[in-house]
Amino acid sequence: MKFCSECASPVSLSIPAGDNRPRYVCTSCAAIHYQNPKMVLGSIPVWERDGELKVLLCKRAIEPRYGYWTLPAGFMENNETTAEAAIRETQEEAGANIKLGNLFTLLNVARVHQVHMFYLAELVDLDFAPGEESLEVQLFSERDIPWSELAFPTIQTTLELFFADRVKIREGGSYGFHTQDINRTMRAEGEEAK
Amino acid sequence: MKFCSECASPVSLSIPAGDNRPRYVCTSCAAIHYQNPKMVLGSIPVWERDGELKVLLCKRAIEPRYGYWTLPAGFMENNETTAEAAIRETQEEAGANIKLGNLFTLLNVARVHQVHMFYLAELVDLDFAPGEESLEVQLFSERDIPWSELAFPTIQTTLELFFADRVKIREGGSYGFHTQDINRTMRAEGEEAK
Repeated sequence: MKFCSECASPVSLSIPAGDNRPRYVCTSCAAIHYQNPKMVLGSIPVWERDGELKVLLCKRAIEPRYGYWTLPAGFMENNETTAEAAIRETQEEAGANIKLGNLFTLLNVARVHQVHMFYLAELVDLDFAPGEESLEVQLFSERDIPWSELAFPTIQTTLELFFADRVKIREGGSYGFHTQDINRTMRAEGEEAK
Repeated sequence: MKFCSECASPVSLSIPAGDNRPRYVCTSCAAIHYQNPKMVLGSIPVWERDGELKVLLCKRAIEPRYGYWTLPAGFMENNETTAEAAIRETQEEAGANIKLGNLFTLLNVARVHQVHMFYLAELVDLDFAPGEESLEVQLFSERDIPWSELAFPTIQTTLELFFADRVKIREGGSYGFHTQDINRTMRAEGEEAK
């Protein structure tokens, strides 16, 4: 940020009165331009028949992480709820119709000023198709999940927690709600960017 | 938003290629200025001794809702987690030292582009004091909560859910995690703004 979005004068970093951290403050009209974390909302769309469960993943057609696999997810917009954002992103990226369940993960990625949230979801039908931001969309059983080709740590963590809860469900339990702080990057795990 | 924060040229509302909703786009450098919902993080600080539980509330010293009671809460900042934000706001507004528990409520307030979240919390000591944004800070037992003088619907909902879960705990249950969409305003309930 270089200029005030209200009056076009230059901004400078300074600590406003009564505040305790640097903000972009207009040198002319004194408007304070706060910057805050964003929410990324997505779903875990599953298709379960004859005792076999599969999860819908999207291969990214955009940077960052072009060509890597993700759960459908994206930035929450103004005027919508977290649930509405998860349904919209699943429709936009995977063309998938879902029945949304409970919120399953809330993952802090403070390094990039984001909070990622994923809802449980059931596919209503198999009429899914890649949207503009996806190269392909595919159902994966647990043993076929492309673990080494996942786009983001929050996808990996959400899928790991999901399959761990599936084990508990087979033993009579139910899905939990999980919060975690994510500090690692995918590349830090020894993998080069494509 | 009137001017581009990168180059100071005027912005106009238009739908960028590949997008499906109006954004502020720079008429000169074509930068797209997205606007996204913000997170408000807070806690439910309790002090429990000899079977009696009290909740710490703050009387607001700032607008909106000057003079009304709130749980300590405020906008989440970049470079912090949701839990860190809840602890910081509790320290800043109530001067209170807490041991943070689980996330308790996640409340969508789509009307004002906000998501409010409140964590369970135990006061570590009674050395609390009003911060710059509070007129006073006070412990309330359930019967003394100033229900008609609460600042925001998300405060009312969180406190109602909290005391409902306390009933379940007395019957052997535990605290849940609650999500809700909040559409009402405090003033719509027949109350004039102060």
